[in-house]
Amino acid sequence: MTASELGGRELAAQLRTRTAGQAACIAATGTDVQLAAVTATADEAAAWYLRSLATAAAKSGIACEVTDLGASASPAHIGSALAALSADPAVHGIILQTPLPFPARSQDLAGLIDPAKDVDGANPVSLGRLAAGLPAFAPATAEAVVVLLDFHGIELAGRRAVVVGRSAVVGKPLALLLVARDATVTICHSRTRDLAEVTSQADILIAAAGRPGLITAAHVRPGAVVIDVGTNPTADGGLVGDVDAAGVAVVAAALSPVPGGVGPVTTAQLMSNTVSAAAALTRPAEA
Amino acid sequence: MTASELGGRELAAQLRTRTAGQAACIAATGTDVQLAAVTATADEAAAWYLRSLATAAAKSGIACEVTDLGASASPAHIGSALAALSADPAVHGIILQTPLPFPARSQDLAGLIDPAKDVDGANPVSLGRLAAGLPAFAPATAEAVVVLLDFHGIELAGRRAVVVGRSAVVGKPLALLLVARDATVTICHSRTRDLAEVTSQADILIAAAGRPGLITAAHVRPGAVVIDVGTNPTADGGLVGDVDAAGVAVVAAALSPVPGGVGPVTTAQLMSNTVSAAAALTRPAEA
Repeated sequence: MTASELGGRELAAQLRTRTAGQAACIAATGTDVQLAAVTATADEAAAWYLRSLATAAAKSGIACEVTDLGASASPAHIGSALAALSADPAVHGIILQTPLPFPARSQDLAGLIDPAKDVDGANPVSLGRLAAGLPAFAPATAEAVVVLLDFHGIELAGRRAVVVGRSAVVGKPLALLLVARDATVTICHSRTRDLAEVTSQADILIAAAGRPGLITAAHVRPGAVVIDVGTNPTADGGLVGDVDAAGVAVVAAALSPVPGGVGPVTTAQLMSNTVSAAAALTRPAEA
Repeated sequence: MTASELGGRELAAQLRTRTAGQAACIAATGTDVQLAAVTATADEAAAWYLRSLATAAAKSGIACEVTDLGASASPAHIGSALAALSADPAVHGIILQTPLPFPARSQDLAGLIDPAKDVDGANPVSLGRLAAGLPAFAPATAEAVVVLLDFHGIELAGRRAVVVGRSAVVGKPLALLLVARDATVTICHSRTRDLAEVTSQADILIAAAGRPGLITAAHVRPGAVVIDVGTNPTADGGLVGDVDAAGVAVVAAALSPVPGGVGPVTTAQLMSNTVSAAAALTRPAEA
């Protein structure tokens, strides 16, 4: 058995086409949709990600402005940049790139992103609204996993999903999204005992731990669907996921590749969220 | 085998004693700690709960003021009451009692409770901060489950916890609290297939579904710890949990009773949260 590939590039292209159409409609009313990214790191992976964002934005008809505060930016400096962008009517979406220079912490600063512009669901308010079942932007990576599963026709309701990873960026919001879609959801992490036993109960297994090769064939029930959210840089400048793809492909029914799986859907989803934010922000007030 | 009883009354009394001491210290500085409850229902169970709150407040040295807006209160009316209490410096904790009269919804209105006074973790901001690992009040019932487990010396780290119920008031925040304590957590709900199979994997099983008798001996692994969060009114004016106690007591190692388990700890925890809020709100600003 060889797992079918749950690729994300076709879905990403479809999302971008839809987003570009919506951005053009908004532009026709006199507003250019704009995404603003704030960065304060010399990290190579962060720079790579921002370039991929800029490419996706260009393909989606969205202007992408990067504010680079430098790797010695203070929390106050980063905070005032976020507050200024939140107040700027020309900006519709705001992303705070990680990592941040010590002592700045994303969870402390993201509260300064206007929830209406919080297209990557970084503000704790967005996470709380999500948990409470209220409208909010989810972190784009978590949302991308769900839309990728939907795109490939994988049913969620009533099925057992296991999420490996408990970050506020992926693991926890993804668990909330999957529960909202009626999956029975288990959250695993570094302190989970006998990880393979727990993950083997999954109909749908999502690896979001940030550890290359963590998920092997021994962790996967034959016939399960496996989504690899990991994006771990390799020594030669490449990218590997959290899943031992060669081994897992033998037992899984379907597996998302890295690169080319969740990644491109994430950036496309961010652009889609930015257009949604722009549409809401520019909608004429009701009479 | 008969399960040992995980009673909550002794813990509740300890919490109240500690809270009363803290309230007295704050009173000595000239501030009486005050909890405000807003209610807008003729529901008997709500009235019973508010009376138990008033009793617990009196035992804890806390003033408890109930604002009854009547069963026909509008969302705007309820919202302005919450906003006024949030702005009132004499009030340190605010509770919005449910159920609310249609079309008012707790998740829409609780955002008007100042997070610093949100002692029952009802504001989505509090839930989001909890998920992001930031300081926040958790819903008192969810917190009560964790402190009850701690009180009885039940280890959480690395163990499998299964939460039955996905409400924003208990199931979801409790899952977040248990993940933060390093448990491997599964969230089940009404759409879970073969509930007994999933719950039988639990070292610690928490029933918070609001369905009397939902959890039977067949749902429990021999030797598991079972916490019953259910508070379902009976025809004769009593209270039953979600667990078939007689049957489950034969297989479980330990079981919390209803009444006398999570319930008294919840009200005591609310008082503890109110004193914590008062301490933070009355603390002199740093020089």
